[in-house]
Amino acid sequence: MTRGAASRVGSRVLLNTGHGKGKSSAAFGVMGRAWARGWRVGVIQFVKSGRWQTGERKLAGHLGIEWQTLGDGFTWESDDLDETAAKGRHAWQVARRKLASGDYDLLILDELTYAVSYGWVPVGDVTAGIAGRAAHTNVIITGRNAAPELIELADTVTEMRKIKHAYDQGIRGRKGIEY
Amino acid sequence: MTRGAASRVGSRVLLNTGHGKGKSSAAFGVMGRAWARGWRVGVIQFVKSGRWQTGERKLAGHLGIEWQTLGDGFTWESDDLDETAAKGRHAWQVARRKLASGDYDLLILDELTYAVSYGWVPVGDVTAGIAGRAAHTNVIITGRNAAPELIELADTVTEMRKIKHAYDQGIRGRKGIEY
Repeated sequence: MTRGAASRVGSRVLLNTGHGKGKSSAAFGVMGRAWARGWRVGVIQFVKSGRWQTGERKLAGHLGIEWQTLGDGFTWESDDLDETAAKGRHAWQVARRKLASGDYDLLILDELTYAVSYGWVPVGDVTAGIAGRAAHTNVIITGRNAAPELIELADTVTEMRKIKHAYDQGIRGRKGIEY
Repeated sequence: MTRGAASRVGSRVLLNTGHGKGKSSAAFGVMGRAWARGWRVGVIQFVKSGRWQTGERKLAGHLGIEWQTLGDGFTWESDDLDETAAKGRHAWQVARRKLASGDYDLLILDELTYAVSYGWVPVGDVTAGIAGRAAHTNVIITGRNAAPELIELADTVTEMRKIKHAYDQGIRGRKGIEY
């Protein structure tokens, strides 16, 4: 694997992908570390809508971490895919401004991969926005089915591979564990 | 895959293993969710020693989460392997008492897999301690090379598979990201 193109600027790009549990959990674990070090942290959620009050969002509020849910829910729950796509494109415009702003030590772009894989945003726009970010802004991207261009760009890529998941046994996601 | 034996008691056992980044990060992400839901959370670190002040520990202190570093550092850094093994066994005794106590909604047993793979604690002791835990105590285990018995016991198992890691390019772990 080649070194991520992003590392030249002194900050790092992490990508958590795969079908197993832990992609967003790991991002929020790093959010806590970053907070503990006094970093300025921002979170943008590309799919989750503001209707869903998650534990991680509550924690971020307590810690004074900026948090934006700009998604419209998962597409398979959406009544209007054009609206969902438009919200996804808007979320990326917000993210791109923040990436370039220099205001953040860490930006978490949660479920950004879907904005690409669902066709809301061209992958070249995403890689250009990340490559052109402020030099000190670290980035964490999460979501399944990461485009090869995102894998190439990132410095550290982990595939969360499902060995087994309680969901498969009909056990539903639980407050405190999954959200 | 069979359903984890642990699920019969109403709580869940999560296991994060593999050689990629994110095993402990994901556990600490769930720690934040659990805190946000008002759960009583405890963390035991089996390998890290108290000399290492991590961001996650600082966050836990801020949130009032109980945290114990009972390890002796990594074995390849140890001058005295008997002492390291003894500390590992002691950590397991502490964990076992907490698992049975009923005092926790979530116990994070960080890097517990090494206590088994290094031979400090028989795997049967670990599986018995987890299976015999208080009914409402959820458990997260992290570490590489999880024993098959731990994978069988757990409800949800994720392999954090390394696609690439900045370490491979000589980039060292960084405050705010790795600790």
